[in-house]
Amino acid sequence: MTATSNKLLDLPSLAGDVRSGQRAALARAITLIESRRSDHQASARALVQELLPETGRAIRVGITGSPGVGKSTTIDALGMYLIEQGHKVAVLAVDPSSARTGGSILGDKTRMARLSAEADAFIRPSPSSGTLGGVAAKTREAMLLCEAAGFDVVLVETVGIGQSETAVCDMTDFFLALMLPGAGDELQGIKKGLVELADMIAINKADGDNIARANLAAGEYRAALHILTPRSVHWQPPVQTYSAMTGTGIAELWQSVLAHRDATAPSGEFDARRREQQVKWMWTMLEDRWKARLKSDAAIRAKVKHTETEVAAGRLTPAIGADAIAELLA
Amino acid sequence: MTATSNKLLDLPSLAGDVRSGQRAALARAITLIESRRSDHQASARALVQELLPETGRAIRVGITGSPGVGKSTTIDALGMYLIEQGHKVAVLAVDPSSARTGGSILGDKTRMARLSAEADAFIRPSPSSGTLGGVAAKTREAMLLCEAAGFDVVLVETVGIGQSETAVCDMTDFFLALMLPGAGDELQGIKKGLVELADMIAINKADGDNIARANLAAGEYRAALHILTPRSVHWQPPVQTYSAMTGTGIAELWQSVLAHRDATAPSGEFDARRREQQVKWMWTMLEDRWKARLKSDAAIRAKVKHTETEVAAGRLTPAIGADAIAELLA
Repeated sequence: MTATSNKLLDLPSLAGDVRSGQRAALARAITLIESRRSDHQASARALVQELLPETGRAIRVGITGSPGVGKSTTIDALGMYLIEQGHKVAVLAVDPSSARTGGSILGDKTRMARLSAEADAFIRPSPSSGTLGGVAAKTREAMLLCEAAGFDVVLVETVGIGQSETAVCDMTDFFLALMLPGAGDELQGIKKGLVELADMIAINKADGDNIARANLAAGEYRAALHILTPRSVHWQPPVQTYSAMTGTGIAELWQSVLAHRDATAPSGEFDARRREQQVKWMWTMLEDRWKARLKSDAAIRAKVKHTETEVAAGRLTPAIGADAIAELLA
Repeated sequence: MTATSNKLLDLPSLAGDVRSGQRAALARAITLIESRRSDHQASARALVQELLPETGRAIRVGITGSPGVGKSTTIDALGMYLIEQGHKVAVLAVDPSSARTGGSILGDKTRMARLSAEADAFIRPSPSSGTLGGVAAKTREAMLLCEAAGFDVVLVETVGIGQSETAVCDMTDFFLALMLPGAGDELQGIKKGLVELADMIAINKADGDNIARANLAAGEYRAALHILTPRSVHWQPPVQTYSAMTGTGIAELWQSVLAHRDATAPSGEFDARRREQQVKWMWTMLEDRWKARLKSDAAIRAKVKHTETEVAAGRLTPAIGADAIAELLA
């Protein structure tokens, strides 16, 4: 962790360099956030608080999809489109499995070949440490730093796993689910949990021979979504087709992101979502901390495990189990 | 609270009377569970633990639906059918609003006119105290007592509100969503959160002139659910029509409850759901207790509120907010 050597701890200077949009400073600041050293963590906390007034100005878009759906090529195409429009684009990721597998969904920048060469793009792989809660918290703070550095669009990629998707939805303004063409029996099912989260479904690979199938799939998804009551009275999640390869429909994807903001901002819903996210994030951090206390000591861990087993087996009521664990914390 | 007078506290005798299926004892035991007196709460905890070996033998069915869908008449018809089949049926409810509105969804037993006159039925309105967490915890323990008293089917009614539905789904084996007929533009939307929970959708009032509309609605719901990936590989939630008024389809509703058990039991999924529910319940109780500490003192409450406001407004990072609240608890 040479990047987080002592000189990093000149916080006012680091904050200033981030504010002026220096990419190397931004990268160092994110490394500071990701450090597990407790002095680094204290510095990181102070740094984010210091930069907080400069945050919140980006549009935050979460992007999910199963492997093979073309997340990287989509982000590459969407990012290039946004840069052409004059935006500065940061790309982050939440992939709690990257620590275990040794790879990150964004580790290989060649997967976003064009975007990674752009001065107005900043691509950062998923933090590769520990629990989903930890990974998500670090990505959220990295997002704030990117905003302070002047990036006005933040794309947060995630793997198509329920908990990670919820975490990314909880830190973004708009949650985009990518799907593949296919109709009838070939149609890819929408995970129930995802229906709850998605602000839009976009079907990739609508090019060449696939266009008809993509349109059929869009029709079927649209019919299904139509029967579900939307989360917001101001926004019915649309279903669109596009091709990351040819670029067809990429501009329309972005139009939907803007249309969602225009539809939900006047009533205050857009800002309310952010406020609720921030408060929820705080409570999640508190809960994680409180649960971490139960894992910090081997003897306590064993007693918690034993209590859980007894409750699961129906030998102990949950109320008495809760008593037993509360005593460990007292 | 005369029903919870001192004689209640002869726990072994009360436990014995519940075990032998005495309805008056069961009612007294549930009143003990619902009491807020701390000595009663300690007794209630001991009573549930004492009876725990006799619990778990019922099929637990959660039932939800919007006002007007006919929940009470459905439970009346289903309950009567089950009693004719030789079952003993307990009906409970989770309605956190009953304390505020002064009424309970099950307070008026005349709404289940036939069932409430049956010796093999036991109907208990929602506990009318406080938070959803409190109401749900009491209903769960009441369910265990009903099982110990020999009721082999427990129906738990809930109002069609997201959080209450999740609480009831988390205490039952099978979660049934009731809907009304109607097709096309008249079709009642399925709430997204409900799609995640429902093990079956049943369309009531499929009688007389409504039969064709009910069948059309069923077809549309079926098509929508088909596109969603089911929660279990062993169970695709069916869509059925029935009429609580004529009784048509009531037997088939129950067949689906049994079919779900038969489909999920061999793989261990049925039992796993219960084990997970029990452990989750324990952790929820712990969290509720921990949060109650933050509400117990007016000064602390004010500081938590202030911290939440600062975080919501973006003046304080969630991490520093979490620090501030953690200090209050230290």
